[in-house]
Amino acid sequence: MPDLRPVLHINGMFLIMLGASMQLPVLIDLYFHNPDWQVFLAASLVCVFTGGALVLSAKGYGPRLEMRQAFLLTVSTWLVLPAFGALPFAFSEFRLSYTDAFFEAMSGLTTTGATVIVGLDTAPPGILIWRSLLQWLGGIGIIVMAVAVMPMLQVGGMQLFRLESSDNSEKIVPRVAEFIGTLGVLYVGLTVVCAFALALAGMTAFEALAHAMTTIATGGFSTSDESVGHFRSAAVDVIITLFMIVGSLPFVLYIQVLRGRPLLLWRDSQVRLFFMIAAGLVSLVSLWLWVSHGMELSMALRLTAFNVVSVMTGTGYATTDYNAWGSFAVGVFFVIMFIGGCAGSTSCGIKIFRFHVLLAMASTQIRRLFQPHGVFVPRYNGRPIPETVGASVMSFLFLFVVIFTVLTLALAATGLDFVTAASGAGSALANVGPGLGDTIGPAGNYQPLPASAKWILSAGMLFGRLELFTVLVLLTPGFWRA
Amino acid sequence: MPDLRPVLHINGMFLIMLGASMQLPVLIDLYFHNPDWQVFLAASLVCVFTGGALVLSAKGYGPRLEMRQAFLLTVSTWLVLPAFGALPFAFSEFRLSYTDAFFEAMSGLTTTGATVIVGLDTAPPGILIWRSLLQWLGGIGIIVMAVAVMPMLQVGGMQLFRLESSDNSEKIVPRVAEFIGTLGVLYVGLTVVCAFALALAGMTAFEALAHAMTTIATGGFSTSDESVGHFRSAAVDVIITLFMIVGSLPFVLYIQVLRGRPLLLWRDSQVRLFFMIAAGLVSLVSLWLWVSHGMELSMALRLTAFNVVSVMTGTGYATTDYNAWGSFAVGVFFVIMFIGGCAGSTSCGIKIFRFHVLLAMASTQIRRLFQPHGVFVPRYNGRPIPETVGASVMSFLFLFVVIFTVLTLALAATGLDFVTAASGAGSALANVGPGLGDTIGPAGNYQPLPASAKWILSAGMLFGRLELFTVLVLLTPGFWRA
Repeated sequence: MPDLRPVLHINGMFLIMLGASMQLPVLIDLYFHNPDWQVFLAASLVCVFTGGALVLSAKGYGPRLEMRQAFLLTVSTWLVLPAFGALPFAFSEFRLSYTDAFFEAMSGLTTTGATVIVGLDTAPPGILIWRSLLQWLGGIGIIVMAVAVMPMLQVGGMQLFRLESSDNSEKIVPRVAEFIGTLGVLYVGLTVVCAFALALAGMTAFEALAHAMTTIATGGFSTSDESVGHFRSAAVDVIITLFMIVGSLPFVLYIQVLRGRPLLLWRDSQVRLFFMIAAGLVSLVSLWLWVSHGMELSMALRLTAFNVVSVMTGTGYATTDYNAWGSFAVGVFFVIMFIGGCAGSTSCGIKIFRFHVLLAMASTQIRRLFQPHGVFVPRYNGRPIPETVGASVMSFLFLFVVIFTVLTLALAATGLDFVTAASGAGSALANVGPGLGDTIGPAGNYQPLPASAKWILSAGMLFGRLELFTVLVLLTPGFWRA
Repeated sequence: MPDLRPVLHINGMFLIMLGASMQLPVLIDLYFHNPDWQVFLAASLVCVFTGGALVLSAKGYGPRLEMRQAFLLTVSTWLVLPAFGALPFAFSEFRLSYTDAFFEAMSGLTTTGATVIVGLDTAPPGILIWRSLLQWLGGIGIIVMAVAVMPMLQVGGMQLFRLESSDNSEKIVPRVAEFIGTLGVLYVGLTVVCAFALALAGMTAFEALAHAMTTIATGGFSTSDESVGHFRSAAVDVIITLFMIVGSLPFVLYIQVLRGRPLLLWRDSQVRLFFMIAAGLVSLVSLWLWVSHGMELSMALRLTAFNVVSVMTGTGYATTDYNAWGSFAVGVFFVIMFIGGCAGSTSCGIKIFRFHVLLAMASTQIRRLFQPHGVFVPRYNGRPIPETVGASVMSFLFLFVVIFTVLTLALAATGLDFVTAASGAGSALANVGPGLGDTIGPAGNYQPLPASAKWILSAGMLFGRLELFTVLVLLTPGFWRA
């Protein structure tokens, strides 16, 4: 059993930060004269006091985290923060059950965007901004993790993205700290730009801020039950489509762009593959709507670009009920849920770089078959893929399939029909948001699901957001024995 | 471009054998005084003459096949034989379109068992025995390929199953030939035993023979539209369940058992895992039916054992419409389609040994994460898994997922609903037979599907039966250039 003090201590610090962030909904509810400000203040105090107690009680540990402590810290953080982030939902005027509140908070922090709240259009502004804030914090949290934590944990091939100087351990801490500072500024900057653009396109300042936060985080919570379809604005659609893409590219590369190396962005093989896949899918589905549904091509392109990018990047906004576009489109939307964006972005799913690695490995395998004496080396971004990375990525795919299957069957056992169960499982695991079918589809809501299904889905979001391995490690008996 | 003469020559020989095998339905139709004997005689002559022409026209090639010739031979054989095996269906009293006839023949030779024929109960006996014979020939064909061809082609990890002396190339040909002879005798013997058992259980001699052939081949063609449910006999259910299992274990091990080493069968990790999975699934679904549907436990066990083993092994018989057992059961039946049996058996699917390899690789990955300095070696059957095999198996899984996805979307584009498209794609790729939903489910039939869907499904059966890689190699531009 490793020393738990650093785990408790750092979780305490995160809780204090969570409590501090609840001051934003307090201020907003005060500004709009909504009595819910008291709920947020109370929840904030609970967070700060609990966090403070944890920080004070767990002191005096060594300066370095061992591997198992890092895993425990990561998973526990993503359980503790939703557990406390749920409090305002449970105590606000919505009076959600704790199951629903936890589901909403987990969906927020993991940037999933599945919601159990019906009546968003008349919801108190504090609650709306809290949902957006959870996703926004989850978004920056996951970028920081992708840069600073995942490569160290070496889960699912993320070791491909170590900072170049990571072998030099003395310099790494200050460099990472500086890096995170820059990332934070960039993240705030992009959110502000997105919010201004949305306000110019006709949203109120509040709506613009709320949507900017959940767009850049590829989260997908909206301020309306109709999602972005509510605004019926081509300008809004285009702006959000662009910023969902911004949220799905590697943020590290933006820093390179700012440092005067814009070409690096386009030379990155993840980014290229992302655009190729997105463009291919948008063309395919638009043509389908045009040819088989007789939809006007410009409308088909606008609807498809928005909704395909939304589902593929795991954002989960909708501007229409694509569930009604026929089984080919439904099939496409089911499949693209799993794609995701680039590593080091706010998006989730299997992720583009893994497809790149898998394609490189498989094509090497195939060429070896008919040229047994040839030497073929699978490459990623021009460099040979280390064998450990290849095995890690391929195991990720296998575990993804296994966990998806288990979640689907567990959901079906709670009584959900097959399409709802399978698409819900996929949507949770890939942190998308909406599923398919009438209940949880783009026009639906997770509210009617049984409580057991909501806990299963919450578990799926956690597994997906933490790249499966991080959670699975804790479920290995050897982890606790060693 | 490799020398095609050996490919043409050997295909010619196979065609002559196919023509010769058409004498069985000729005799049976003569015996039952059905005029269809003329159709079989004519088709037989077409096969023999075409085959003879190929044999005579393509002579004088070297004694050894190069790699590319081996791939071309394998794939072309599995296209030529269904193309000619379809003739009796097209010209019999059913007058199937060539699309339907090809689908039926491909479904037969790949031991899939999906059928487009409605009215089996009143079908001419020649047609019924021809369907069974196609599956029976496909079954022995695939065992021989698994022993003699696949390990040489090294596709999808099958190199794990090289005969021990395969490094000694002088002795390998006589040893393989002897081996195939023994396998043939064993295959005939098991079929005869199964047929006798079924006759004792109350089937007519004809029904017993037809079902024995498709049981041992894990094929699943029946003589009734109701499949095995038609016989309403617990004894028949039990006998067929047992022989579907016999057909799913490695036939090579039966030879070891006959040579006095019965323990080898039980010590094989594929066999153990097969029984563990089957027992686990049968218990799970029986309990589900008992608890949630209030079915009597003995009836639940009988129905579940038969239908779960049938779908898991890719046989595809049904004794009831499990499509009506609720979404949990539907989910289970969807998932177990993909499992399959052991390598070196007549069954298809992803196959047990691949799950074993994948589990070993993934658990090694997980343990390495929290013990970075530990040395973990994934093992199969007690031996370390060579790195090439691991990568090969994992690429197989990736390509399986990709091809399954493409097939599903292609089927959806022909207008099928999502569940029919996805389960049809899975059923074809894993060579199972029935899908899910009302059209192609256990109580349905592939007849109503559009022709395009039938060709897509035929392609899926071919990919699945030939372990994906064998076909993909031919689709690689480099294959033709080299």
